[in-house]
Amino acid sequence: MSVNHHPLEQHTASLIDAFRHVRQVTRDMAKGLSDADATAQSMEDASPAKWHLAHTTWFFETFIVLPRLGEDALFDENFGYLFNSYYDAVGPRHARPKRGLLTRPALEKVLDYRAHVDAYMEALLADPDEELSALVTLGLAHEQQHQELFLTDILHLFAQNPLLPAYRAPEPLSFDSSDAPPVDYVTVRGGQVSIGNDGEEFAFDCEGPRHDVLLGDFQLANRAVTNGEWIEFIKARGYAEPSLWLSDGYAARQAQGWTAPEYWHQRDGEWWTMTLKGAQPVDPDAPVCHVSFYEADAFASWAGARLPTEFEWEHAARGRSAEGNFAPSGRLRPKAQKTSHTDGLCGMFGDVWEWTASPFVPYPKYKPATGAIGEYNGKFMSGQMVLRGGSCVTSGHHIRACYRNFFHPDKRWQFSGLRLAKDL
Amino acid sequence: MSVNHHPLEQHTASLIDAFRHVRQVTRDMAKGLSDADATAQSMEDASPAKWHLAHTTWFFETFIVLPRLGEDALFDENFGYLFNSYYDAVGPRHARPKRGLLTRPALEKVLDYRAHVDAYMEALLADPDEELSALVTLGLAHEQQHQELFLTDILHLFAQNPLLPAYRAPEPLSFDSSDAPPVDYVTVRGGQVSIGNDGEEFAFDCEGPRHDVLLGDFQLANRAVTNGEWIEFIKARGYAEPSLWLSDGYAARQAQGWTAPEYWHQRDGEWWTMTLKGAQPVDPDAPVCHVSFYEADAFASWAGARLPTEFEWEHAARGRSAEGNFAPSGRLRPKAQKTSHTDGLCGMFGDVWEWTASPFVPYPKYKPATGAIGEYNGKFMSGQMVLRGGSCVTSGHHIRACYRNFFHPDKRWQFSGLRLAKDL
Amino acid sequence: MSVNHHPLEQHTASLIDAFRHVRQVTRDMAKGLSDADATAQSMEDASPAKWHLAHTTWFFETFIVLPRLGEDALFDENFGYLFNSYYDAVGPRHARPKRGLLTRPALEKVLDYRAHVDAYMEALLADPDEELSALVTLGLAHEQQHQELFLTDILHLFAQNPLLPAYRAPEPLSFDSSDAPPVDYVTVRGGQVSIGNDGEEFAFDCEGPRHDVLLGDFQLANRAVTNGEWIEFIKARGYAEPSLWLSDGYAARQAQGWTAPEYWHQRDGEWWTMTLKGAQPVDPDAPVCHVSFYEADAFASWAGARLPTEFEWEHAARGRSAEGNFAPSGRLRPKAQKTSHTDGLCGMFGDVWEWTASPFVPYPKYKPATGAIGEYNGKFMSGQMVLRGGSCVTSGHHIRACYRNFFHPDKRWQFSGLRLAKDL
Amino acid sequence: MSVNHHPLEQHTASLIDAFRHVRQVTRDMAKGLSDADATAQSMEDASPAKWHLAHTTWFFETFIVLPRLGEDALFDENFGYLFNSYYDAVGPRHARPKRGLLTRPALEKVLDYRAHVDAYMEALLADPDEELSALVTLGLAHEQQHQELFLTDILHLFAQNPLLPAYRAPEPLSFDSSDAPPVDYVTVRGGQVSIGNDGEEFAFDCEGPRHDVLLGDFQLANRAVTNGEWIEFIKARGYAEPSLWLSDGYAARQAQGWTAPEYWHQRDGEWWTMTLKGAQPVDPDAPVCHVSFYEADAFASWAGARLPTEFEWEHAARGRSAEGNFAPSGRLRPKAQKTSHTDGLCGMFGDVWEWTASPFVPYPKYKPATGAIGEYNGKFMSGQMVLRGGSCVTSGHHIRACYRNFFHPDKRWQFSGLRLAKDL
Repeated sequence: MSVNHHPLEQHTASLIDAFRHVRQVTRDMAKGLSDADATAQSMEDASPAKWHLAHTTWFFETFIVLPRLGEDALFDENFGYLFNSYYDAVGPRHARPKRGLLTRPALEKVLDYRAHVDAYMEALLADPDEELSALVTLGLAHEQQHQELFLTDILHLFAQNPLLPAYRAPEPLSFDSSDAPPVDYVTVRGGQVSIGNDGEEFAFDCEGPRHDVLLGDFQLANRAVTNGEWIEFIKARGYAEPSLWLSDGYAARQAQGWTAPEYWHQRDGEWWTMTLKGAQPVDPDAPVCHVSFYEADAFASWAGARLPTEFEWEHAARGRSAEGNFAPSGRLRPKAQKTSHTDGLCGMFGDVWEWTASPFVPYPKYKPATGAIGEYNGKFMSGQMVLRGGSCVTSGHHIRACYRNFFHPDKRWQFSGLRLAKDL
Repeated sequence: MSVNHHPLEQHTASLIDAFRHVRQVTRDMAKGLSDADATAQSMEDASPAKWHLAHTTWFFETFIVLPRLGEDALFDENFGYLFNSYYDAVGPRHARPKRGLLTRPALEKVLDYRAHVDAYMEALLADPDEELSALVTLGLAHEQQHQELFLTDILHLFAQNPLLPAYRAPEPLSFDSSDAPPVDYVTVRGGQVSIGNDGEEFAFDCEGPRHDVLLGDFQLANRAVTNGEWIEFIKARGYAEPSLWLSDGYAARQAQGWTAPEYWHQRDGEWWTMTLKGAQPVDPDAPVCHVSFYEADAFASWAGARLPTEFEWEHAARGRSAEGNFAPSGRLRPKAQKTSHTDGLCGMFGDVWEWTASPFVPYPKYKPATGAIGEYNGKFMSGQMVLRGGSCVTSGHHIRACYRNFFHPDKRWQFSGLRLAKDL
Repeated sequence: MSVNHHPLEQHTASLIDAFRHVRQVTRDMAKGLSDADATAQSMEDASPAKWHLAHTTWFFETFIVLPRLGEDALFDENFGYLFNSYYDAVGPRHARPKRGLLTRPALEKVLDYRAHVDAYMEALLADPDEELSALVTLGLAHEQQHQELFLTDILHLFAQNPLLPAYRAPEPLSFDSSDAPPVDYVTVRGGQVSIGNDGEEFAFDCEGPRHDVLLGDFQLANRAVTNGEWIEFIKARGYAEPSLWLSDGYAARQAQGWTAPEYWHQRDGEWWTMTLKGAQPVDPDAPVCHVSFYEADAFASWAGARLPTEFEWEHAARGRSAEGNFAPSGRLRPKAQKTSHTDGLCGMFGDVWEWTASPFVPYPKYKPATGAIGEYNGKFMSGQMVLRGGSCVTSGHHIRACYRNFFHPDKRWQFSGLRLAKDL
Repeated sequence: MSVNHHPLEQHTASLIDAFRHVRQVTRDMAKGLSDADATAQSMEDASPAKWHLAHTTWFFETFIVLPRLGEDALFDENFGYLFNSYYDAVGPRHARPKRGLLTRPALEKVLDYRAHVDAYMEALLADPDEELSALVTLGLAHEQQHQELFLTDILHLFAQNPLLPAYRAPEPLSFDSSDAPPVDYVTVRGGQVSIGNDGEEFAFDCEGPRHDVLLGDFQLANRAVTNGEWIEFIKARGYAEPSLWLSDGYAARQAQGWTAPEYWHQRDGEWWTMTLKGAQPVDPDAPVCHVSFYEADAFASWAGARLPTEFEWEHAARGRSAEGNFAPSGRLRPKAQKTSHTDGLCGMFGDVWEWTASPFVPYPKYKPATGAIGEYNGKFMSGQMVLRGGSCVTSGHHIRACYRNFFHPDKRWQFSGLRLAKDL
């Protein structure tokens, strides 16, 4: 775990302000949700909103408050069991698929829990030592990750309801962003390049150690693949042509009956999709979203291209400001990527996470931290693929060029899309 | 469907009073539940409380209000899809396993739905014709069935929560009911006996037609099997001895890992059980509850006895007042059966449903009603076993000697126990 | 277990001749099968031919040879484990789904095992006492049951092979049996009738005790439902109309994708079916075969009729000679039922097992035999339905009016059909 | 597909001799197997021996004989459907899990099929052009892969049989190979190193293109982890300690109940294992075998080490003669690795496949061949891990330093072990 400063600090006066800000954002996300909305769990991969609210708080309580202030500061002796996610070293935990059955404690009580822990945290943050700062920085980054999951999980839940309720006011999505530019390939020069966290800012352990890799020259698409292009893939029967697919991918496609991205459905011959603002027409110019790695890979094969490796992606993104369509924009949906960067690449950050061709494995000489904190990323380094760049539901000031997100290749409920690459 | 009067009418002034009473009981059951409590679904067999509240209302709306008052009376066009249970003739319905994901409509809105339909019903009940009376009588009996399911399903839900919350105030259960009497067998004379609804009062279609069957003389235990006796069965390794079990029963026991009744767990060497009033010690004198037919049958084999047929049970119960420990007592838990009837049999009604040896099949010349109402019982006449006598969570004035309840033989979440029988 | 004589004895000189005959029939059934054919297991419900050959032998060895002649007579110490079917009291056994992996012992060795045990049996049968006679009679009836399963299981196995190999020479099935007569209903008078084994001949334990039941008058179809009638049911979309089906039945139909009887497939618009003589056109005049109870019940609903109870069936069949199209005819396929009995009912025995409306439950005062032999039928008295009358693959001299066969209601690989009944 | 010569040619006079040799080896492997042994399929991952014999032949028939000689050369029109493995471009194929139900064609007929195709191949090989040579070279390498699978699959099948039959004569395994040396770490210098097929000899498409990677200096264990070391891991409760395991790995361990390597079992407190020569005591000095990647990774964590990447492994192995304990030795079981190479590393080839830390992904600029041949490796580049070095059941002259084998990380029926690495 790095002891570097959290990027939020650059935008706020201090760590305590960053703490207040991130915690407030999470509370705001719960506004408009009923106790029932916050309790239900739509599938094993997702967690209830209430659980996200409590678990992020449990992190601060378990790793900071209790070790420093003792058991007297404990809010409720049962919460450790209920809201531990996967930290085996901390003790047993409630079975993940049964999270949606925890109708008690109520949402109100979970908010009390947040206030209780926040008060202790405020006291501790009045005089932070280095370890505390490092832990708080980690805890805030952790909470930001759960902010994104909060949104992806609520969308999945609401999409199961035949009423298709809107999480945020269902204003019609304007298509005034004009057309997406035609796809174009930008040549990127390779060489011996440095990859990973350079130590200038906070990063998760899996983003380091920084090390060199050899890259050939390659081409990278100027923007992400659009919904319009995806509709062409569907029309060309791409979902039904096994030669385009990885073997495990086609098996997943068959078993799960995929014929379009998650949440897509047809109304009178037009494609619609469920969004955080209710059901909306599919925007042909916006990046395609809610596709699995397997679908992304099949699309790339069909298009005569490939996915970039995570190293190619990071090399191309390095030095670029991590700005884009993130959660604070309030749009909560990908937007046509038209404002081109000087080098021709646009939309590297925000809109959709971009699947890469790289399995999530440790960088050379990676060592997990010791103790429970060490369970953060290392134990997931098997069977998952790296995604890069953040999405329209990623928290503000959370992302960077070296940031590695990872999911199993059949998952579709994240805001995941793709950008094509080619060999030179 | 019989056009006889509902038994409730004997206790209230009129059908409209019966309607008000039953509807009020259901509303009262929802008191103390949060929106989340009322939304969650703990397993596919169970339904959310909110769903029970809405579905019983949907029954009145669909079969009475809309046919008589037209579509203008419709509360919400989506509710038909959401709250149809299994009436295929009425149209498609929301998938049963996903009922727990309906966080919208909220509990409050479902209560509005009840009020909306009740108002129309009140208007119609001001001047009921014969068909209306028959449908309302059926609708109230249907709602009473769901009242019992409401309680069994809430218990199952709360039992999944590590906090083991109490549905009703967790007063300590007094054991002052004194000891259960020793088991004793009462001889019942057989012969050619009449079985089924005699047409004097309301009954479900499956309780008729009345017909004669031949019964030999037999012996019936004076009371239900107790928790204390069940503990002896456990100690004697009855759960581990395949020769006591039906083949399908032992397979279910292995697959589901049964070693005690549902909800039982040990604390410091003592058996406790989850109840509607929270976790409580197991009362050795009370009837055992939450056992499957397979367990009941294995216990009977171990005890050198058998389960009675439903005909034996009904013959023994005929002519007896249907009084006992039902839901209105507020106890919501079986109680030691000590007050003996003059013939020596006690507890035939209330406390626990008693598994019989009889599969649920139609009586001779049974014909389901035509149309959607006809889906009520007939389509379930396969693979289920008959239970008799009602339980401590059965609604008041709902049960009778000829009443047939039925569940698959591996189910345990109902308040199901057993009474032994023997051949002479 | 009855000590009455086996019906075979009436047709052969003595018990030893009966023994030789039944054992020879089983050996003959293995002719033409390769070691591989005899080893494979096509599904968990089925067993390999080799297993049937060995298990029937294991029965004689375990219950007769070893108790009387001691361990010196043992053929192979491993065979008890490998070829015990479900007799828990005898000891552990090889897992049923893995029977098809027993490539060793080879078919040749299993035939040696048969010869080894037969030699000891011949010695014992030279001077049989009463207990021995009873056990041998039971063992032969048991072997005849496995002879039928041998054929049903081989058919299922060969039907999985895209080559659709024929078990017996694939002569074209002549349709010269002329048309089936139109369906006609014969009135049967009810009353207080005796049901079950009358003690005159051998019967399985579940066929008794003999007891009286009350039957109303009813109508029974003159013949079984034909393939031609079933095709009408298919054309009328009977498989897609849930109101015709039991709830569990429609769920099974959906889960397993039934649209026609097992083994049916279409070639150029015509229905064909896999048989023991290879793929053959469906004969519209022959009884429909390989349908589940659920399908049979749905068909009856569609036809405005019902299935008879097992008591109605037995009452109608009583006194009739148990003759019909059984395995010794060599046809191994149902045949149009045209030769009418004087009372108008034809085909009560042979061709297809007829599903009844009766669950397989014990008759009043039924007691299983003690010890391992007692595991024969009693433990299966749950969740299965009774079939009556035998089929075209039932062994000769095996069936009788009181004979109760039983299978779970979703099974289709037996030669199972139906005959309709109606209330008067 | 490379057009380079097959290594076998260096050991035999010509391609036709190589063809004859490889085809003969496969035939010899079938000796001693019954028709049933060759037909059974013990799990979906495994294939019947008969299927391996036929499928390798189908490869030559489909890609060489039929395109050159026409349909007249076809052996049986059904075989294409039955024995296509996964080449979607060639047409539909028989469902993999049902391969064990193909009791017909018999083993004898499959051997006829081999002879039929071999005769045509001999004719064609009398005058090979370049494309033919390349296809034959690929076909022989393909057949050698199936030779190894033939052995791993037969072992798995025989291990399911309680009789634990021996595939080859069960001579006692001598432990005279003396003790394994203590584990020692050899330092390997990194740098910019070349990886992949250098074009000197035949290689599969996935072994190239050759490209440079950057490697740091590292340490590699002098030998593979031994059974004795694995027993220490078991004793230290390594299987029960989640902190040692990848998250997906521990889930697999729980779901499948792993407590020791596949085939291990205890007799009187000693570990035994099933082998191709029957059940044998576990040799503490021999490399551990039949462990999954997940287990290998957990062991490495426990030992304070890690698995090498496939690049580290190849770099250390480069330049070394690919000699070791392969199938032709006839031992068919790993052997203590004691003969040290001059650099201290021993046993890099043979004995056990060594799991690496590298997911099986394409090398930069990898392009699958076009057409059906292109389905060879590319479609499996997802979710599998690379293994290196070959095993005691790998065919002779088949392996090389750049050879990449791959299996899903939970598979254990291959002869898979591990060698530890450490950072410097």
